[in-house]
Amino acid sequence: MYRTKNNGELRIDHVNETVTLAGWVQKTRDKGFMVWVDLRDRYGITQLIFDEERTSKDVMDMASKLGREFVIQVKGTVIERESKNKNIPTGEIEVLVSKIVILNESLTPPFTIENETDGGEDLRMKYRYLDIRRAPVRKNLEFRHKVTMAVRNYLSAKNFVEVETPYLIKSTPEGARDFVVPSRMNEGEFYALPQSPQTFKQLLMIGGMDKYFQIVKCFRDEDLRADRQPEFTQIDCEMAFVEQEDILQTFEGLTRHLLKEINGVDVETFPRMTFDEAMMKYGNDKPDIRFGMEFGELNAVTQHKEFNVFNKAELVIGIAVPGGNNFTRKEIDQWIEWVRRPQIGALGMVYCRYNDDGSFKSSVDKFYDQEDLAAWAKATGASPGDIVFILSGETNKVRAQLSALRMQIAEKLGLRKAQEFAPLWVVDFPLLEWDEETKRYHAMHHPFTSPKPGQMELLKSDPGAVKANAYDLVLNGNEIGGGSIRIHNKQIQAQMFDYLGFTPEEARAQFGFLMDAFEYGAPPHGGIAFGLDRLVAILGGQETIRDFIAFPKNNAGRDVMIDAPAPIDPEQLKELHLQLQRKP
Amino acid sequence: MYRTKNNGELRIDHVNETVTLAGWVQKTRDKGFMVWVDLRDRYGITQLIFDEERTSKDVMDMASKLGREFVIQVKGTVIERESKNKNIPTGEIEVLVSKIVILNESLTPPFTIENETDGGEDLRMKYRYLDIRRAPVRKNLEFRHKVTMAVRNYLSAKNFVEVETPYLIKSTPEGARDFVVPSRMNEGEFYALPQSPQTFKQLLMIGGMDKYFQIVKCFRDEDLRADRQPEFTQIDCEMAFVEQEDILQTFEGLTRHLLKEINGVDVETFPRMTFDEAMMKYGNDKPDIRFGMEFGELNAVTQHKEFNVFNKAELVIGIAVPGGNNFTRKEIDQWIEWVRRPQIGALGMVYCRYNDDGSFKSSVDKFYDQEDLAAWAKATGASPGDIVFILSGETNKVRAQLSALRMQIAEKLGLRKAQEFAPLWVVDFPLLEWDEETKRYHAMHHPFTSPKPGQMELLKSDPGAVKANAYDLVLNGNEIGGGSIRIHNKQIQAQMFDYLGFTPEEARAQFGFLMDAFEYGAPPHGGIAFGLDRLVAILGGQETIRDFIAFPKNNAGRDVMIDAPAPIDPEQLKELHLQLQRKP
Repeated sequence: MYRTKNNGELRIDHVNETVTLAGWVQKTRDKGFMVWVDLRDRYGITQLIFDEERTSKDVMDMASKLGREFVIQVKGTVIERESKNKNIPTGEIEVLVSKIVILNESLTPPFTIENETDGGEDLRMKYRYLDIRRAPVRKNLEFRHKVTMAVRNYLSAKNFVEVETPYLIKSTPEGARDFVVPSRMNEGEFYALPQSPQTFKQLLMIGGMDKYFQIVKCFRDEDLRADRQPEFTQIDCEMAFVEQEDILQTFEGLTRHLLKEINGVDVETFPRMTFDEAMMKYGNDKPDIRFGMEFGELNAVTQHKEFNVFNKAELVIGIAVPGGNNFTRKEIDQWIEWVRRPQIGALGMVYCRYNDDGSFKSSVDKFYDQEDLAAWAKATGASPGDIVFILSGETNKVRAQLSALRMQIAEKLGLRKAQEFAPLWVVDFPLLEWDEETKRYHAMHHPFTSPKPGQMELLKSDPGAVKANAYDLVLNGNEIGGGSIRIHNKQIQAQMFDYLGFTPEEARAQFGFLMDAFEYGAPPHGGIAFGLDRLVAILGGQETIRDFIAFPKNNAGRDVMIDAPAPIDPEQLKELHLQLQRKP
Repeated sequence: MYRTKNNGELRIDHVNETVTLAGWVQKTRDKGFMVWVDLRDRYGITQLIFDEERTSKDVMDMASKLGREFVIQVKGTVIERESKNKNIPTGEIEVLVSKIVILNESLTPPFTIENETDGGEDLRMKYRYLDIRRAPVRKNLEFRHKVTMAVRNYLSAKNFVEVETPYLIKSTPEGARDFVVPSRMNEGEFYALPQSPQTFKQLLMIGGMDKYFQIVKCFRDEDLRADRQPEFTQIDCEMAFVEQEDILQTFEGLTRHLLKEINGVDVETFPRMTFDEAMMKYGNDKPDIRFGMEFGELNAVTQHKEFNVFNKAELVIGIAVPGGNNFTRKEIDQWIEWVRRPQIGALGMVYCRYNDDGSFKSSVDKFYDQEDLAAWAKATGASPGDIVFILSGETNKVRAQLSALRMQIAEKLGLRKAQEFAPLWVVDFPLLEWDEETKRYHAMHHPFTSPKPGQMELLKSDPGAVKANAYDLVLNGNEIGGGSIRIHNKQIQAQMFDYLGFTPEEARAQFGFLMDAFEYGAPPHGGIAFGLDRLVAILGGQETIRDFIAFPKNNAGRDVMIDAPAPIDPEQLKELHLQLQRKP
């Protein structure tokens, strides 16, 4: 061992002890007759002191040659500091060095390795191994470990078994694109990397494992949006002989445990909301309920006058921004501009100030009188001092627009408090969703999701109305988990494949093993999967998942540190029975 | 919830309770007026009873129609059994059923789903989800979970942090073949699946993580030998600021903890043996030391007579088989035949019986007298009643042959006791090994392994003699872990790449990021990786890793249950900028 103590543990009680420390030189202050060094490791920073009266000349000379990030080992005596540093746990002492060994030198690092750094995102990713030396990054990884340990110990104590499912599986065109892996031993054939262990966990239920979980990497070859990773980690769970209520109870328990154990926060029973209600009140199936600003539906109180924008709209909705009557005219214009950005896509926005004296002032006073405006205030729950923002148009679009506005305003007003946690179950999701591109319905969750009892009949008459035994767990406006009760009956599964446009042959080719398994006594079962990266980020009070991944990829799916992907040896390609496509 | 109790928990104390159970029908006995059903789930088996005097006709009728593996839910009353079954924990009670729901039917399963099954390996793999219903398979998976939980909790308590390293990395021609993953977004480029997180864990040490572990899938595209899997799981560990002794202590601690916690076995300090000693005494770098039969070197006591087979041999070695003088002539001939099989490759074998009266009888009495034979007995540690088996030839070959014989005999004599555990550290491995095919030295462990201090100079003069800071943990004749202290100095790493035949350009292309990282203050570090599949199998008292993997692949790398790998859609190939190789 290169050390007898680490750099985070020396206290005033250790004074006069002889210790050996090792670590990185974070900083040196050289006054010639005296040199101070901040020595860093994972556990903290300890100040070393070299003093020409008490330190040999050789050692003094070496101390003055130390550069940032040199790796050194020192022997010395713990002494009390003259000027104590109350900001660090080792701040009462320093180590008077008698011996020093340079274990490794370092070039000057490309950015400052301290809590605050001057390195930009790209540079820090290229030198991620240096970025990780910074306490905030390291603490995020330690935090992630703490969360996964808590998850595993909780589920294990509840009799869940972690089972490893295979990574080399089979490609299915359903859903997102698979990453594939050419097989050398089976010419012309490919494995696929799992988008999730969905079918395997269902097979484990059919296999009687009863309660399964796994913290597992999943893969999706998608065009990456901001903060998406081609490989991501899931807490994947499944239970047999359960109904939706059992799943909700079980994983509400897990989440409550995490909030308590990790964040020290006690949360009561999680509220529940149907998908329809969430869309109506928040325009969003993952509403952030840490703050209000619920949507007020205004059709009835706006469509009786001559204002055609509202009259021809399918939906008119508004939110009351608390204290928003303080907004200047310029600020209001900025919000109007904000909703008109192409990413949001509103054509305009109507506002109505609610003055402290109870009077109203709107941008459409030409069309509406005080009584109308009072009705708007009532419908949106506005109080004097607020401002009501109103959007109108086609239902789905206007909801999405107002939802985006609501979130942005909350962000600006500081209503999205990182250390406040508001979990929410959203239930009764639709089974199907309409896809404009293919002009047909697709499974909203996946094709194994069961419809609510008695709704199978609606499939033909009113497919969009069929509700599923599907649920999401939402935390602070983020979907952190989602799942469903699965179909366990082979006829219903076959009908579902048929409805979703699979020919029996396609269904067999892709899911034959699952349909075979359904022949042999599949129990009722259901489950949930949590996005670990997101969950950890939110529990950590942040929203960027990249900060909680040791070696993330960039938006082009590249690892800029190791420079992957990369060309491979032609010989390797040949062994895989492949060639690069000729350019046309 | 479909049940109020599971099938493993009802006891005599529950008599008169009304319960709801669910599970699979394992067996029915139908006497017309009475029907018994064994109801199974993960937790056990509970006997149900239907009795025409106490059960309604509807329920009786349904009971008599139940087939094997039907999934049912029953409501009933716990009653005391008339004839108790002491073999199962629920054997004192049965449940008198008043209500039954068939949750799912089942075809007749392709093999018997009981502890002993009539299904062959292939059939059980195809229907693995049914095989998993069998208690021995399920218990293996539960056992695996128990082991991984114990590993994680132990290492976590010792301040190790589990960090997830990426699965989509970069191909390196070093070592075994990589599985590669074509990138759609980066035309003509490929990711590779990791053979181990080796470089990433070294980067984490450079990044100051100090103590890392990860239970992680690894991938090798090798021609599969028996009981090898293309994807396998590793307990991967690394520590900074450590020397070899620290690693041995730490992971001896982990292994001792597992033996205690999982197997209830207390093991003293693990013995250590150098690689050279292991080869000399056991002809093997992973000796099973649960039994003796150490090799005796016989050159000095065999090469002074006219027996040319021995005289011209590089090495003559023997083992004393305890009690082997009981072998019949036919049994001895069978052992001689055994070593002459092509897989072993000996040309013949000399034997020498050690009679109870102290006299000897050998197959080469023509050449050797009693005094010679007594010397053989002494060199091999034989006692009266033993037999000495002797092989001769080229050192490496004859050691391998005698080692195989030693293991086979021990197996036959029942000396390899599954519930006896004999761990062993094998240390001081050679840095390099000679490869006959390429006629050059290769890194025995990997190119990041450090040589023993002061041995770098030997690299040019006597490469085969250079010892490495490399060690294996051996348990019952299986390598369960291996590791090394790494090179942390960039010059030495560059020299090593050079020595191993990498041009500076190749070294840079493949390991540039690691060599760059070495520029910025790499700490001394080292680690170890355990093969989890093997470790779990051995702790479980078995040697077949496949039995401890939920969904294993066969020897052709195929998953016969899901039928993977498989062809993919031509469209998918095109998106990946690939085409199948034209046949010549």
